[in-house]
Amino acid sequence: MKVAIFMGSKSDLPVVRKAADLLKEFGIDCTMRITSAHRTHSRTMELVRSMEQQGAEVFIACAGGAAHLPGVIAALTTVPVIGVPILGNAFNGMDSLLSIVQMPKGIPVATVGVDATENAAVLAAQILSLQDKELRSKLEKYRSKMENKVIEDDKNITL
Amino acid sequence: MKVAIFMGSKSDLPVVRKAADLLKEFGIDCTMRITSAHRTHSRTMELVRSMEQQGAEVFIACAGGAAHLPGVIAALTTVPVIGVPILGNAFNGMDSLLSIVQMPKGIPVATVGVDATENAAVLAAQILSLQDKELRSKLEKYRSKMENKVIEDDKNITL
Amino acid sequence: MKVAIFMGSKSDLPVVRKAADLLKEFGIDCTMRITSAHRTHSRTMELVRSMEQQGAEVFIACAGGAAHLPGVIAALTTVPVIGVPILGNAFNGMDSLLSIVQMPKGIPVATVGVDATENAAVLAAQILSLQDKELRSKLEKYRSKMENKVIEDDKNITL
Amino acid sequence: MKVAIFMGSKSDLPVVRKAADLLKEFGIDCTMRITSAHRTHSRTMELVRSMEQQGAEVFIACAGGAAHLPGVIAALTTVPVIGVPILGNAFNGMDSLLSIVQMPKGIPVATVGVDATENAAVLAAQILSLQDKELRSKLEKYRSKMENKVIEDDKNITL
Amino acid sequence: MKVAIFMGSKSDLPVVRKAADLLKEFGIDCTMRITSAHRTHSRTMELVRSMEQQGAEVFIACAGGAAHLPGVIAALTTVPVIGVPILGNAFNGMDSLLSIVQMPKGIPVATVGVDATENAAVLAAQILSLQDKELRSKLEKYRSKMENKVIEDDKNITL
Amino acid sequence: MKVAIFMGSKSDLPVVRKAADLLKEFGIDCTMRITSAHRTHSRTMELVRSMEQQGAEVFIACAGGAAHLPGVIAALTTVPVIGVPILGNAFNGMDSLLSIVQMPKGIPVATVGVDATENAAVLAAQILSLQDKELRSKLEKYRSKMENKVIEDDKNITL
Amino acid sequence: MKVAIFMGSKSDLPVVRKAADLLKEFGIDCTMRITSAHRTHSRTMELVRSMEQQGAEVFIACAGGAAHLPGVIAALTTVPVIGVPILGNAFNGMDSLLSIVQMPKGIPVATVGVDATENAAVLAAQILSLQDKELRSKLEKYRSKMENKVIEDDKNITL
Amino acid sequence: MKVAIFMGSKSDLPVVRKAADLLKEFGIDCTMRITSAHRTHSRTMELVRSMEQQGAEVFIACAGGAAHLPGVIAALTTVPVIGVPILGNAFNGMDSLLSIVQMPKGIPVATVGVDATENAAVLAAQILSLQDKELRSKLEKYRSKMENKVIEDDKNITL
Repeated sequence: MKVAIFMGSKSDLPVVRKAADLLKEFGIDCTMRITSAHRTHSRTMELVRSMEQQGAEVFIACAGGAAHLPGVIAALTTVPVIGVPILGNAFNGMDSLLSIVQMPKGIPVATVGVDATENAAVLAAQILSLQDKELRSKLEKYRSKMENKVIEDDKNITL
Repeated sequence: MKVAIFMGSKSDLPVVRKAADLLKEFGIDCTMRITSAHRTHSRTMELVRSMEQQGAEVFIACAGGAAHLPGVIAALTTVPVIGVPILGNAFNGMDSLLSIVQMPKGIPVATVGVDATENAAVLAAQILSLQDKELRSKLEKYRSKMENKVIEDDKNITL
Repeated sequence: MKVAIFMGSKSDLPVVRKAADLLKEFGIDCTMRITSAHRTHSRTMELVRSMEQQGAEVFIACAGGAAHLPGVIAALTTVPVIGVPILGNAFNGMDSLLSIVQMPKGIPVATVGVDATENAAVLAAQILSLQDKELRSKLEKYRSKMENKVIEDDKNITL
Repeated sequence: MKVAIFMGSKSDLPVVRKAADLLKEFGIDCTMRITSAHRTHSRTMELVRSMEQQGAEVFIACAGGAAHLPGVIAALTTVPVIGVPILGNAFNGMDSLLSIVQMPKGIPVATVGVDATENAAVLAAQILSLQDKELRSKLEKYRSKMENKVIEDDKNITL
Repeated sequence: MKVAIFMGSKSDLPVVRKAADLLKEFGIDCTMRITSAHRTHSRTMELVRSMEQQGAEVFIACAGGAAHLPGVIAALTTVPVIGVPILGNAFNGMDSLLSIVQMPKGIPVATVGVDATENAAVLAAQILSLQDKELRSKLEKYRSKMENKVIEDDKNITL
Repeated sequence: MKVAIFMGSKSDLPVVRKAADLLKEFGIDCTMRITSAHRTHSRTMELVRSMEQQGAEVFIACAGGAAHLPGVIAALTTVPVIGVPILGNAFNGMDSLLSIVQMPKGIPVATVGVDATENAAVLAAQILSLQDKELRSKLEKYRSKMENKVIEDDKNITL
Repeated sequence: MKVAIFMGSKSDLPVVRKAADLLKEFGIDCTMRITSAHRTHSRTMELVRSMEQQGAEVFIACAGGAAHLPGVIAALTTVPVIGVPILGNAFNGMDSLLSIVQMPKGIPVATVGVDATENAAVLAAQILSLQDKELRSKLEKYRSKMENKVIEDDKNITL
Repeated sequence: MKVAIFMGSKSDLPVVRKAADLLKEFGIDCTMRITSAHRTHSRTMELVRSMEQQGAEVFIACAGGAAHLPGVIAALTTVPVIGVPILGNAFNGMDSLLSIVQMPKGIPVATVGVDATENAAVLAAQILSLQDKELRSKLEKYRSKMENKVIEDDKNITL
């Protein structure tokens, strides 16, 4: 298991699942867990340690509102932590974005865009690809596919 | 010791000290500690437990940026936690305010205004005064004093 | 009657009712009243005094827009006032949040998140539990239940 | 006395005084008072009534942060109330602006720009000029003077 | 005709009509016109002058986006101008609010809340009532009715 | 071909097409292409050069989120580039607006409002009309038509 | 005279002058005028017409707060209008940016960044260069110079 | 050379240098270059390729305003790119944050807080430590040092 994906609440699952799906597409073993920085604080700590022992080299943490989960995980490990702000019912995602990105000196969270779980998966793959040439070539293929998709879309425009 | 005041960083001390000063004025025993939700995560947990055992009935937690300290403390105790957003160098205090106030269901933080450490002290006193008639009368005197100060200021205006 | 819940308008009722429901779950007597800081200003003052005489130890005040109700109540009593910003049609809740949390020195409002009426109830229970061991144990059970809910949700994820 | 100017705190005086100065320039009798919606709530009510009895036809209310003073005055009178948001140390004036302008249906506050006390005076004069032709002609002279000032500034530009 | 209501676009009509309806309820003659600060700039100027000649004592101007209509009208008359920001598809009303309220020194617009056309009508009535005792008593009745409505709503709550 | 319209993603097409439609109405030859500043970075560069060689005198670039397309095109040509921020799922268009308008010194993007593709077309026509008297007269007719539409709408109001 | 630069107030001059300086560097004749959309509304109209008759092919309009000047000029001419939001004392430039960029359909303003008067000059030069090959080559030299400046700065870094 | 640090402008150097200093403290070879996404677009592309060939495994890109540099680099490589928003003169850092974090699907930028260049260095080190046990132990020592610093600060508080 290389990537541990955590989300703060079951309601985040439909958005978060896209990260797991994309990681599988890249052939990266991952696990997806629901745990809360606040409701299951001590269990979160245990899960982080357990995931690290199982070999997790990247954490992806997704949370909305006062989104502390990514930062709390980052405090517990020196493995890179990617944070994904989840859109809530107020503030248009600004609350979760600022709660994740504005971490204090010494404990960074690698923040991606609001609801950008797929970008979290790509970033995780990019980090892992530094030690895995095959993965890097998969990432390059993924980029080419995206590129071709745009070119295809472009061809199909009709004025 | 009735009130435990925590701040995330030494740099918050000048603003935070006002809470301690006002609590002393109310005759409320308090302690003031520097601890970080991220840099000293496990120590924060120990301190919360230790403070609770020493009789803390209110926590005041002050933090800037991605201000997780109040929320993390709130996750560790059922004692009321008052959160004070501290003004940082970007976002005009919006990052710390949203990181503190937008807590998930079940784990509230009683949030006061940006840098409003004195209001945190008054709120703590109000909570404690529910069991302490003398303290309530001190609060009423404090209000009268404020009221008189405004009336005094009003008298001294010259057009 | 321990907790007086005020809302500024009948339209807030569906969100506000959740606070009353949760307080009842905790076995806390509460009352729920519609009163406006502006439309029924003098009646608000009477209601605050009457509630205080009936033994209210916490006020919960819910309001949207230029949300003055929590602050006006806080000006009339030294009992703790919890403010809940209600989401309106513009500004994504920012107007009510700032109108409630940025109170002047000396008159705090314990602010919770936008539409977070259940967190207001939990905070009220936490404050009351300082004098009521049974309530504190109910709060701990509530936390355990939440914790178990998260663990249950976690178990039911399928990749 | 035609215009009653209220401010929430002595610290607002330097900005507020400009309103009084400009009203005097227009020959409009005014009074300037410090009173707080929260710290001197009942006195504010008395002052509003007293000012109304003394003939106040416009109120100007200046306040920062959770700026309730204009709204509370508007709740106490049907005389027009002009609200001036005062710039505070956080949120760039957004907190006071939203606290003043987003009043509930039925109780409007005529809001002007942040720290725009002079515009409050002009607006008060415009309202009073509906019954006072001489004042209207003073307002037109004031406009001409402003116009000429701009034209003068324009002439003095050097490329 | 006492009040001239202007809106920038036909699409604003459903919200703006409420101002006219309420003014009629107060027995105040008003007219409602569509004119744009930009698309029909010179016609706007003619309309303002024509309305002033017909006796308009208050203008209400409603506009969304870069909402210049209230400010442009205010530049053309010394009669009080009330501005109503209209909610658009982006920025949650912040664009129209700031475009209306932040007028330069000397040319105020009396700004009310987003989509608050009824409050614009009430404010217009308050201004006109300074010269019209009957209108003032209508306003007081309107307030009583609102007050009673809140009291009625309050009675009908069921826990 | 005078105007090259670029958009970052196929999903922008319904909004972007309005620019092309309006340009055709003005009799201006244009082309509409999908290309991404990030997914097809080198192809974007080729397209910009190719469009310039085909005679493009104005670029219109439409993008949402971290909207780099207008700025990247502006870096590649000295032909005027008009940027249109596209509304996304978070931040109400603020992310794309700021990403487009706040360009560094020396490389401007002529930014129009959120989703304002028609205004981009009008601005392009205004720029081209400096060398094309017929086009200028078409623009004046377009303005008259708009003006008449407002006047028509105004006539059809019923109180 | 090719470019007419307008500013709303003398206080904008230090920032606005940079546009004139850069235009002169490009050898473009320009004039710089102080005129207000509100304080000198009719004079603004005359100046716009007069400038157009003198051959102005681009307007640059700089204003802060509720910045209506660019939009009002755009309503009076079909010549391209570039708008520059000027930083004020509140809202960090957001008020002027939104007042300028969010123009209604049909009347665009080509908006550049806050205080970005130099970019307004470059954009004006880019527009004029469509009919002036020499100017285009000056723009390319300007770009090269900027490029070389960055390369020079890069060389002088010391780790 | 393991980490390539890019900044958009010489003026960013004092803040950016902290990243280089911290990387050196960790014993990580890095290089620091000034290059602009817009002013030196093609050179940026060359530098990215050259850095990649020299073995760069992480890019750190720092930029203010419409901060495209991190996103443009991310488009050119599959190596992880860390983006640092730099505080500018308007918008309190919101413009650069949103320009960096809200990248489109497929091209992530690992965003850290405003001016948080040291956190960018820590994140780079965390990524590199996945293949370098010695570096991981240095990171753990860095954490301990931070922890001890907080504990030391805590001891030195005097009430």
